[in-house]
Amino acid sequence: MGDTIFTKIINGEIPSHKVYEDERVFAFLDIGPLSEGHTLVVPREPVATIDMLSDESAAAIGRVLPRICRAVCEATGASDFNILQNNGAAAHQEVPHVHFHIIPRFPDRPEDGGLGVVWKPGAFDHGAGAALAGRIAALIGG
Amino acid sequence: MGDTIFTKIINGEIPSHKVYEDERVFAFLDIGPLSEGHTLVVPREPVATIDMLSDESAAAIGRVLPRICRAVCEATGASDFNILQNNGAAAHQEVPHVHFHIIPRFPDRPEDGGLGVVWKPGAFDHGAGAALAGRIAALIGG
Repeated sequence: MGDTIFTKIINGEIPSHKVYEDERVFAFLDIGPLSEGHTLVVPREPVATIDMLSDESAAAIGRVLPRICRAVCEATGASDFNILQNNGAAAHQEVPHVHFHIIPRFPDRPEDGGLGVVWKPGAFDHGAGAALAGRIAALIGG
Repeated sequence: MGDTIFTKIINGEIPSHKVYEDERVFAFLDIGPLSEGHTLVVPREPVATIDMLSDESAAAIGRVLPRICRAVCEATGASDFNILQNNGAAAHQEVPHVHFHIIPRFPDRPEDGGLGVVWKPGAFDHGAGAALAGRIAALIGG
């Protein structure tokens, strides 16, 4: 896989509005924002989807997410927000380098829409669910 | 804040289809699934939103997400998937205990819809963006 635009941003070959970086993580404003303060948090590790990400990079992103979210909310005045991380074209992923969207929500600013979510839950079969949970647990191990 | 249904699930007071647990993290199938294998990953730490979560719990969830995602995809045959984490009622949060949704996507099964996303990007002003990024970076510190 070649470098994506995110590797070029991390390396400074393409300018960005950076909000945070450390040895494993880089964060910057999305320039196609769903709302004010829409931020992208990416690992320096250039893998396409989170299932390919090392434990170390994944832990580093997890660790810093609360801190970045607090700062985004404080700077923008957002009360609520979504974190979205898409994997694969069928799941709305556009750039094939893992990224977490932090998308503030401003209930008092309908024009600053944030993330729209369509939620259509299906039925749940407890017998099939128990079998599936067992298969997932066995695959995770431990 | 009182215990939510997730604390009761973690404590075994309410049954669940568990797929993983460790000293900081608990994961189980969502019984109102958007698609087969829809999984919830929660910290044992009972805080409402991710901005309130300790670095240690946040890192522990981040670290295990790739492993759980791999197992969910392998067990269900999903190719693509979304991770969604909602904070606050205006951002679609229903249970006030931090939770990450892992939502598989099956392009070949239109009836197994997965997460619907409405994406309406707004304009970006580079001057205002630079100022906002500076404020966020200063608030994060370091």
